[in-house]
Amino acid sequence: MADYPLLRKVSRCLRQWDFAARCVLFQNGDHLELLDILDPQGECRALGVAVDLGTTRIVMRLVDLSSREILSDTVLNNPQISVGSDILTRIHHASTDEGAEELKAMVCLAVDDGMETLCLQAGVSTEQVYVVTVSGNTAMTHLFMGLPVDHIIREPYIPVTNTPGTRRADLFLSNTHPEGRVFFFPNIGSYFGGDLISGVLYSGIYRREETTLLVDVGTNAEVVLGNRDWLVACAGAAGPALEGGVSSMGMTAGSGVIDRVSIEGEDFSVGTIDDLPPVGICGSGFIDLAAALFLTGMIDAKGKLVESACGARYTHEHGLPALVVVPGEDSGTHGPITVSQASLDSLVRSKAAMFTILETIVMKVGVGFDDLDRIYVAGTFGAYIDPESAISIGMIPDLDRTRYEKIGNSSLEGATLMLFGDRYMDEADAIRDRITYVELNVDQDFMIRFSGAKFIPHTDPDLFPSVTIPKPKE
Amino acid sequence: MADYPLLRKVSRCLRQWDFAARCVLFQNGDHLELLDILDPQGECRALGVAVDLGTTRIVMRLVDLSSREILSDTVLNNPQISVGSDILTRIHHASTDEGAEELKAMVCLAVDDGMETLCLQAGVSTEQVYVVTVSGNTAMTHLFMGLPVDHIIREPYIPVTNTPGTRRADLFLSNTHPEGRVFFFPNIGSYFGGDLISGVLYSGIYRREETTLLVDVGTNAEVVLGNRDWLVACAGAAGPALEGGVSSMGMTAGSGVIDRVSIEGEDFSVGTIDDLPPVGICGSGFIDLAAALFLTGMIDAKGKLVESACGARYTHEHGLPALVVVPGEDSGTHGPITVSQASLDSLVRSKAAMFTILETIVMKVGVGFDDLDRIYVAGTFGAYIDPESAISIGMIPDLDRTRYEKIGNSSLEGATLMLFGDRYMDEADAIRDRITYVELNVDQDFMIRFSGAKFIPHTDPDLFPSVTIPKPKE
Repeated sequence: MADYPLLRKVSRCLRQWDFAARCVLFQNGDHLELLDILDPQGECRALGVAVDLGTTRIVMRLVDLSSREILSDTVLNNPQISVGSDILTRIHHASTDEGAEELKAMVCLAVDDGMETLCLQAGVSTEQVYVVTVSGNTAMTHLFMGLPVDHIIREPYIPVTNTPGTRRADLFLSNTHPEGRVFFFPNIGSYFGGDLISGVLYSGIYRREETTLLVDVGTNAEVVLGNRDWLVACAGAAGPALEGGVSSMGMTAGSGVIDRVSIEGEDFSVGTIDDLPPVGICGSGFIDLAAALFLTGMIDAKGKLVESACGARYTHEHGLPALVVVPGEDSGTHGPITVSQASLDSLVRSKAAMFTILETIVMKVGVGFDDLDRIYVAGTFGAYIDPESAISIGMIPDLDRTRYEKIGNSSLEGATLMLFGDRYMDEADAIRDRITYVELNVDQDFMIRFSGAKFIPHTDPDLFPSVTIPKPKE
Repeated sequence: MADYPLLRKVSRCLRQWDFAARCVLFQNGDHLELLDILDPQGECRALGVAVDLGTTRIVMRLVDLSSREILSDTVLNNPQISVGSDILTRIHHASTDEGAEELKAMVCLAVDDGMETLCLQAGVSTEQVYVVTVSGNTAMTHLFMGLPVDHIIREPYIPVTNTPGTRRADLFLSNTHPEGRVFFFPNIGSYFGGDLISGVLYSGIYRREETTLLVDVGTNAEVVLGNRDWLVACAGAAGPALEGGVSSMGMTAGSGVIDRVSIEGEDFSVGTIDDLPPVGICGSGFIDLAAALFLTGMIDAKGKLVESACGARYTHEHGLPALVVVPGEDSGTHGPITVSQASLDSLVRSKAAMFTILETIVMKVGVGFDDLDRIYVAGTFGAYIDPESAISIGMIPDLDRTRYEKIGNSSLEGATLMLFGDRYMDEADAIRDRITYVELNVDQDFMIRFSGAKFIPHTDPDLFPSVTIPKPKE
């Protein structure tokens, strides 16, 4: 059935076009919706935008729905950061109607800006955008939609909806075709969001015969394990530990940020983004650094800086031990680039949380790490991690490196896939229905495993046979 | 799936009401729509309004959807009359976007006013109105919806839509629940409107084993013939003749209007609405009058006034013969109430058109009037016609009077029925699909039959055996 505004113009257009038209149809579940009719002699372009709605960043992609060509990409900061960088502060802010409205407006405006940027880059009109697919965690999706979020963080953690579904775009956005639609990925409760469903969809693990582990490492860490017969997921409870860790671990990737570190003797060799003088260090660079520090004995198994091994690089910051990675004369900031003991402690907690989560989920279903045919590493942060370094510090299991496969921003990729066919809607629902969500209770067992993982690489070195543990220099 | 505004309030309401709620659901074809949730401790009332959207009058009825109780009724003039009393003038007016917008606004405002009146009368809130069902002819439905009407009157007479369907009420009306829906009856082309589908639905002729004729006499005349196996309809082509006739025939019913006339010798006995002194004569009164004039010889078989038989009542108006029905001293206007020869001529044309339409449709399907088990007479005008008088002037076939059954405003009744269940939506669609629409071509055969019917009761008196044809007094 045609929407009302279209009904008003269809009779005139058809006569003008000699009763020929191209139709823009939207398959919404079991029914087709006629969004627009186009002059068959004209350009006839229908575009879609995929949105990875992150807590920190919003990544957007413009796609031609007919040719499936990617026309442009853009990234913007989530402006809700001005209210609070963590989701908890935003949820508190949204507890009043005005606050919720404000947060909704912020993010909708940002996405609208993104739409404009994307279309400008591609030289197309925002009026040609008929579909927007949004993949975000449950809280972000609710905040975008202006839905109450109070109960996402209150027991028993029930979001307003697990199936936000397809809505008219004009409820949220201005920069689409007036009859445009927004599809929101479904979520499983408060702690397993649409971004992860989107990631599972893109990874295809739900279709594989072999058991695969999908690890999404972004601001948070979520894990899905399974194959075409079963799927188990966990996230959340241990997340905050890692989240604090990852975000304190360094800056987000950008020009001049160190993303690769190796140490040869006393020489630190750093790689930076765009090969500019170093200005800081990002998460993946930090993991590289920690691995190198450990393998050269500059930090011990507890992650503590070993003064004697660090030599001249050992220093103090705010009264705590620290290490100079790049001296002031070589940096882009003209000051030394350092890592503090506090950051290293935080990294150890994060990697321990990560490993414990992986260990726990694998144990829960009675398989071993060796049974994992493949490990997909997704997420903005995960995309840059060097498995070698991550294994060296005991963050991820010590498996053949070829089993690790980076799949990039799987949330954005899943949202892109969703633009190409309603069958993916059914698949997203099917994934949602099939996943068994395991609450990672931070119980005594978990804490025991967590304590064991707080050593580099682990209290049980047999778990990391390929890591050569250095002999203490002392 | 819940509409967006409801999604925004559902989580708070449920907690406030201790997780109990009554739902207002709307079955729209194959899917349920959740329109509202109500406090189960509260009033929990869901109302509906049926609208008979006539060219001249808009009749509305407020109904409690649970108890099916009729709460109030109201009638208003269609304000589009200020643009033109006939639909053609309005269609011309709507040829510009501004004109169409103006006509839409007029009728939407009127219906909004009606909603307020209905709810005030019943002591309820317009916010409790969740469904509005609109039964109107194709042009009126298009004008209400603000759809282009240009092609309704241009060959090949294709309306924008035959299935206007269910729409959000807020596209047209303000005085409903914000999530209210408006259902529009489907139509069959430009000349067979939703009001007739609604009438067929209410009459039930499509479910009867016996063949039934449904005659709807309003501003226009439409006919449906059939049973549970087949349905044939016609309307339109011969309509304008009758329409001009009916509307020139007198005023619409109202206080003091003559609706019954009988003549005993020289005495005219008139009945008026509300028993007030007569101020005019309406259609049904005019048919009574014509029948009595014919049976007493005051008009001849051609409908011409016979001066010698009329006596003192014979007069002239604007140079044409006329007859005084009520002398000035007895009238409510202090002037005489007359009928002119022109009105009588017009009535003869109208009744001839009516009879010819009935004769034609019956002939087309190869049945005779005698095969008609029942004749339903519907419509605001039809409701008041005395079959005895209508037969006397040869307007309707001379059948046993018990076969005639008045079913009132079948368009409004059908719209009321539609409020009570989605199965009627399916039935309306089924009726629409089953009716064979017969274009009443005004060809030579039709004109020959029409000429025969332009005598009272007919050139062939055998068609009206029960009518005693008076001997000329001359």
